[in-house]
Formats: sequence, C-alpha cells, structure tokens
Amino acid sequence: MNIAIIGVGLIGSSLDRAIRQKTLHTTHLYDEIGDVRTSLRAHQLGHHVYDAFADAIKNADLIILATPVGTFADLVPLINDHAPKGCILSDVGSVKSSVANSFQQLRKDLRPVPAHPIAGTEKSGPEHGFAHLFENRWCIVSPTPSADQEAVDIICNLWAQLGSLVEIMDAERHDLVMAITSHIPHLVAFSTVGTADHLEQVTASEVIKYSAGGFDSFTRLAGSDPIMWRDVFLHNREAVLEMLARFVEDLVAVQRMIRFEDADGLEKLFRETREIRRKVIASGTSRTEG
Amino acid sequence: MNIAIIGVGLIGSSLDRAIRQKTLHTTHLYDEIGDVRTSLRAHQLGHHVYDAFADAIKNADLIILATPVGTFADLVPLINDHAPKGCILSDVGSVKSSVANSFQQLRKDLRPVPAHPIAGTEKSGPEHGFAHLFENRWCIVSPTPSADQEAVDIICNLWAQLGSLVEIMDAERHDLVMAITSHIPHLVAFSTVGTADHLEQVTASEVIKYSAGGFDSFTRLAGSDPIMWRDVFLHNREAVLEMLARFVEDLVAVQRMIRFEDADGLEKLFRETREIRRKVIASGTSRTEG
Repeated sequence: MNIAIIGVGLIGSSLDRAIRQKTLHTTHLYDEIGDVRTSLRAHQLGHHVYDAFADAIKNADLIILATPVGTFADLVPLINDHAPKGCILSDVGSVKSSVANSFQQLRKDLRPVPAHPIAGTEKSGPEHGFAHLFENRWCIVSPTPSADQEAVDIICNLWAQLGSLVEIMDAERHDLVMAITSHIPHLVAFSTVGTADHLEQVTASEVIKYSAGGFDSFTRLAGSDPIMWRDVFLHNREAVLEMLARFVEDLVAVQRMIRFEDADGLEKLFRETREIRRKVIASGTSRTEG
Repeated sequence: MNIAIIGVGLIGSSLDRAIRQKTLHTTHLYDEIGDVRTSLRAHQLGHHVYDAFADAIKNADLIILATPVGTFADLVPLINDHAPKGCILSDVGSVKSSVANSFQQLRKDLRPVPAHPIAGTEKSGPEHGFAHLFENRWCIVSPTPSADQEAVDIICNLWAQLGSLVEIMDAERHDLVMAITSHIPHLVAFSTVGTADHLEQVTASEVIKYSAGGFDSFTRLAGSDPIMWRDVFLHNREAVLEMLARFVEDLVAVQRMIRFEDADGLEKLFRETREIRRKVIASGTSRTEG
C-alpha cells in the first residue's frame, strides 16, 4: 500500500518508522510546518516527503491523519478534493466521536476507519519518535456502523503488524474510557502544575528543586503537547466534564476525611488504590514500573 | 557511632544498607513486626537485629525513627525510658512540624534533629530497599531554634556521606513546600484512582487495561504505603487543606475553560506547565524522564 501520513510529530514519525521497519508498505509524509519537513529529510524519514498536501495523498491507498484532532474538519475538504477513489482514511486521534463526525463530510467513495493507538511519550516532534512505540500497546479501532469491512480489516491488520494489541470499540465508549484513563489524569496534572507555578507561598524554583517527592510525575504528564491536549479537551468536552464532576466530588470527600481526621477512611481508600496499582502492574501494560 | 534504626521498611532498610556500605557506623535494627524482623535476618540486614525496642536503642549514639509519623508520640516515652544520656534523635518523616512537637516531650539531655530525605519508591518493605536510594536526593534537616549544633552537624554530615544534598529548612516551611510538591500530588492520585475504581460507566478492568494513557502514573503514586500516607495527611493537615483549596479553585477554572471552549486559555496554561517540565528535567532531579 501507499500510506500517506499527514502531520509528522512524535506519533506520525513513529508510525513512519514502524511501517518502514515492519511492513512492505511505502510511506508518503506531509507536514504543514516547513521546519518539520526539513527535519524529516535531515533524519531520512519517510520513503517520500512532500511540500504539498495534495501531492502526498494523490496516490494513497490509505491516509492516516496524525495532526491534532482540531485540524480534521479543515482537512476533510482537502481530502475530498485530492484523495484517490476508494482511499481509506484513518487517524491516531485521542478522541473518536468528534472524528467520526468530521469524517461524515467525506466523499462517499472514501472509506473512513477512525483509530487510536494508546501510546506516546511527553516528548513532541519527529526527532523523538521510534519504531517500537506501538509494541504491546492497545490500539482502539472505532468503525462507524456503516464502515467498509475490508477497510476495517486493513487498519486492524496494519496495527497488529506494528505490534499493537487491537480492540474494536464504539466511539462513544472509547471517549468515556479515555476520559478517565487519560484525559482526567492529564487535566489534573496540567492544573496542579499550573497551581504550583502560581503560588505566592512557595516559589517555582522550590517546587522544581523538591519535585522528586511526587510532583515530578505530574510534570511529565503536564509537559505533553499543548495543542494536541487543547484539542483533546475541546473535542471530548462532554465526557471530560462528566468525569471531572465525579472526580471533584470524590476529592471533596477526601478533603473532608482529612479535615475531620478520618484515619480509617483514608487508610481504606489508600488500600483500595494500592490494590489497583497491583492490578496495573500485573496487567503488564504499565509504563511506570519501578 | 552506634545507630539504631526503628522501623525497617523501604526507607529504614535503605538507610541501613547505605550506612553499612558508605560509613564505618554500626547499625542496630528494630521493627515491631515479627515477620519483618525475620525478613531482616533472612536478608542479612543490619549489623544487629533486636527483638525488643529497648535493646536496640540502649547503646545508641543516634536513634533514627523510620516508622510512620503517627507512631512518634507513642515512641517518645519509650525513648525517654531507654535511650542513653546525650543520644541524638532523628527521623525520616515526610512532615516536620508535628515531629518537632512530639520531640518536645523528650528528656532534656536528648538531642532531637528532625530530618526528611526526599526519596522513596512506591514499593514498601525491607526487601525493596537499596543503598543508593538517597544519592543525589535532597535531605531536608529541620532543627528547632534550640537545637544542639553538634547534633545538627552530625546529622547533616551523615546524610552527605550517604550521597544526599543537604538543606536546612524550618519545619513550617518544609511542610508547606512538601504539601505542594508531594502531598497534594499523592492525594490527587489516591483520589483519582479511587474515583476510577468506583465508576458505574467504566469497569475497573477497562481502566486497568487502558491505563498506559496517563492513569498509570497516578496508580504509581496511589500504590504507595497506606499507613505512611494516612499519617502524612493527618499530620500535615493545615498545609494540605490550604494547598488543596487552592488546587480545587484552579481546577474549577480549568473546568470552566473546557465548558466555555476557551481554547486560548487552555493552550496558555499547557504551555506554562510544559515550561515547568523543562525546568524539572534541567534540574536533574527528575525520577520520571523519558
């Protein structure tokens, strides 16, 4: 297959590396930022790198969007203008319902199959990508009810070839599960790090100096790509707000336990959460062991 | 020196290992749990392991409490009964004001020097300790205004010998700085993991399965020792509640940004927090790089 990858940051460049290393497909890269294209050429990424979007996709069997999800609505008309007949369109976005909505505007012969590899680091940019990023990571594929089955199979097989564990899940459920397992942790980390940066009582340099006590882990999440995460929160707004309300409710309960010195309540909660940690470690998918 | 270490979990056993490896001092270990004492002997930890508290401290030049801070008030009368004249008393607790209060009840010839090595992992128990745990980590020493200078120097030198960067800070400031850099991140992690465990919409097994998206990092913090953390929150109650109120206020502001789709506000916050991450990495004290 000719695979066009649009947007070549950490994920897009890892996808290119993995496809070239593990499959016989040909990669065609495009990024709208000139400096990124220069970097792609300097790092010898992609079988082909293009200076125009239309050129990158004009012979594609499969187009994978790896730009922030906020760009998808604007890319769809360009894809309609330049994609070959019957081309498959997929993505790597962290939200899926809004992507399915954007893809409803595609030309009817095009075959959309939204997907989300749950992989990444807090680093951004093509120089930080690597071919094994997706190995032993889940990739959730969220076809719409009317999806072309051959296209779905092609996407599932591609991710399996790259080493991912593939799971089919409808877009709405994906967005709810991701709200709690990914979006809320990031949101809370962004917010906490922001709070620490604006305290009057403690200086930012003190916070940084003593960050090894736990704050450190929050800064890792809060160091992730600003544009990507802005778009995630805006495009998974309902699910994030629903989960956030629940989170704040529970946090207030913990706050009350501390205020009223409910030692047993705190200990009970902490024993439960330790049990979850044991299960995460046992699941073998932890990135943070040790 | 004869150094008695009381409470031999992750920190106490690492302290024993580091002292035996890096200094000429003799270690005397006591833990109130019989199984832990058996484990200490099985792993050949300590120059001496005792079955009675009084025996462990009766010839000590220095006693270091490495039990949860909630035990200190009960240990002080035992120390008064059995510690040799002029003995130095220190600790490794994550809060310092309440420790200073407990130590006010010590016999007047004893020399208290509270301390806090900012080091640890989410693991508990003596089998998980290691000698280099304290290397290149800060150790905050919080002497009271009336502290014996020779005793303060001995404690500072000991931690420097173990590889720590030593800083003197008064107990109240310590507790405020730790509230934001350690206690709030842990509290938020405990609470978030608890929320995820009790959702009706998403099962615990789904949360675990897809934890690599960020939740993972929270479970690492929320897998820390339940008793230790219960005591930290109860003994740093004022500072934690003060910082928590500020954190919740800021979180509500972020919630509003999402509700009202304030893209610029979100992006601005995320760029600021990314800058903090850069500084944490540049500081060289991050435990979570990569």
